[in-house]
Amino acid sequence: MNGKCKISMAVIRRLPKYHRYLKDLLNRDIKRISSKELSDIIGFTASQIRQDLNNFGGFGQQGYGYNVEELYYEIGKILGLTKDYKTIIIGAGNLGQALANYTNFERVGFEVKALFDINPKLFGIKIRDIEVRDMDNVKEFIKDKDIDIAILCTNKGSAQGVADKLVDSGIKAIWNFAPIDIRVPKDVIVENVNLIESLLTLTYLYKSVNQ
Amino acid sequence: MNGKCKISMAVIRRLPKYHRYLKDLLNRDIKRISSKELSDIIGFTASQIRQDLNNFGGFGQQGYGYNVEELYYEIGKILGLTKDYKTIIIGAGNLGQALANYTNFERVGFEVKALFDINPKLFGIKIRDIEVRDMDNVKEFIKDKDIDIAILCTNKGSAQGVADKLVDSGIKAIWNFAPIDIRVPKDVIVENVNLIESLLTLTYLYKSVNQ
Repeated sequence: MNGKCKISMAVIRRLPKYHRYLKDLLNRDIKRISSKELSDIIGFTASQIRQDLNNFGGFGQQGYGYNVEELYYEIGKILGLTKDYKTIIIGAGNLGQALANYTNFERVGFEVKALFDINPKLFGIKIRDIEVRDMDNVKEFIKDKDIDIAILCTNKGSAQGVADKLVDSGIKAIWNFAPIDIRVPKDVIVENVNLIESLLTLTYLYKSVNQ
Repeated sequence: MNGKCKISMAVIRRLPKYHRYLKDLLNRDIKRISSKELSDIIGFTASQIRQDLNNFGGFGQQGYGYNVEELYYEIGKILGLTKDYKTIIIGAGNLGQALANYTNFERVGFEVKALFDINPKLFGIKIRDIEVRDMDNVKEFIKDKDIDIAILCTNKGSAQGVADKLVDSGIKAIWNFAPIDIRVPKDVIVENVNLIESLLTLTYLYKSVNQ
């Protein structure tokens, strides 16, 4: 498999979907599937599916289709699911607390080790068994606990300053829920979840079908 | 302006970003801006920006650039922000409650009128002033209150059944946070926020820079 080739972001963003559907097939004890059958359940065309999976060396066999279990594990490997990830959440407001409560993340190997906030009233509060800690100690915590990913749930105004601090602490991947584009060095990954942008896409589409 | 032409989803997904940056410019009392200056702050190329905005008839003038206020309001109009939207949240778990608490939605004209759940223990609880109600009464509520958009925060297993019920109640737009692709008739809009897919994109990118 050629893991070094340049894959387009469009393909990459489809991989988690393949992964999810393959998991469902595995749960239903289905052993193999053709690109045509996969197309029927995922909604991409069969040719799109073959093309996508060929980017990673191709897993299918002519006349047999794909081995579901193999494909599931290979895509998991490509997605980086061969290790567990230690994460912290910055910002223990509603969204931060909701994410700390979201147990689905653990199923894909994500463990939230702590929440951090600047509000002393929140220090020591526990969400499940995850403690809210003082933002002043974040750098030490990241080093000590070998944190891989930070989940940014601050407000807009604090986000860039917090991101700078995280980068300075050695964080290489930020999952950003703050409604702002943060600036980071080139070797740091940012994945944005911008809820307002998603909502405005919905209103655009709503308007276009209801006018 | 030709609002009926077919605009690609890639362009549409950039519009909320233009809208957000133009709002910042307005707040800083900046009256006009060239595509080059806009490019410097948004990060898209100037030619991309001109091309995007031309899709909607073009707002700029050669040698003058864009009128910030006009462009902000026009993009708002395109995004459907000329009306207020009445929404309900289905699923009053952690995520549903966090979204009910997220006041940023109100700034773009979204009012959450109620949460709905099937768990009687939650009925009557209030998140800010938003009450959790019995899912059995959702259809009546949608009709009575003229609800435009439903925000789906149930678990995976309940999502399709709830979506069917919403469609049956006349809902034309669903903002889906459940980790599943729901099936709806063609005249119903679904915008997905799939947190696990976003997270797996992050781990893919993390792996690709850290290997």
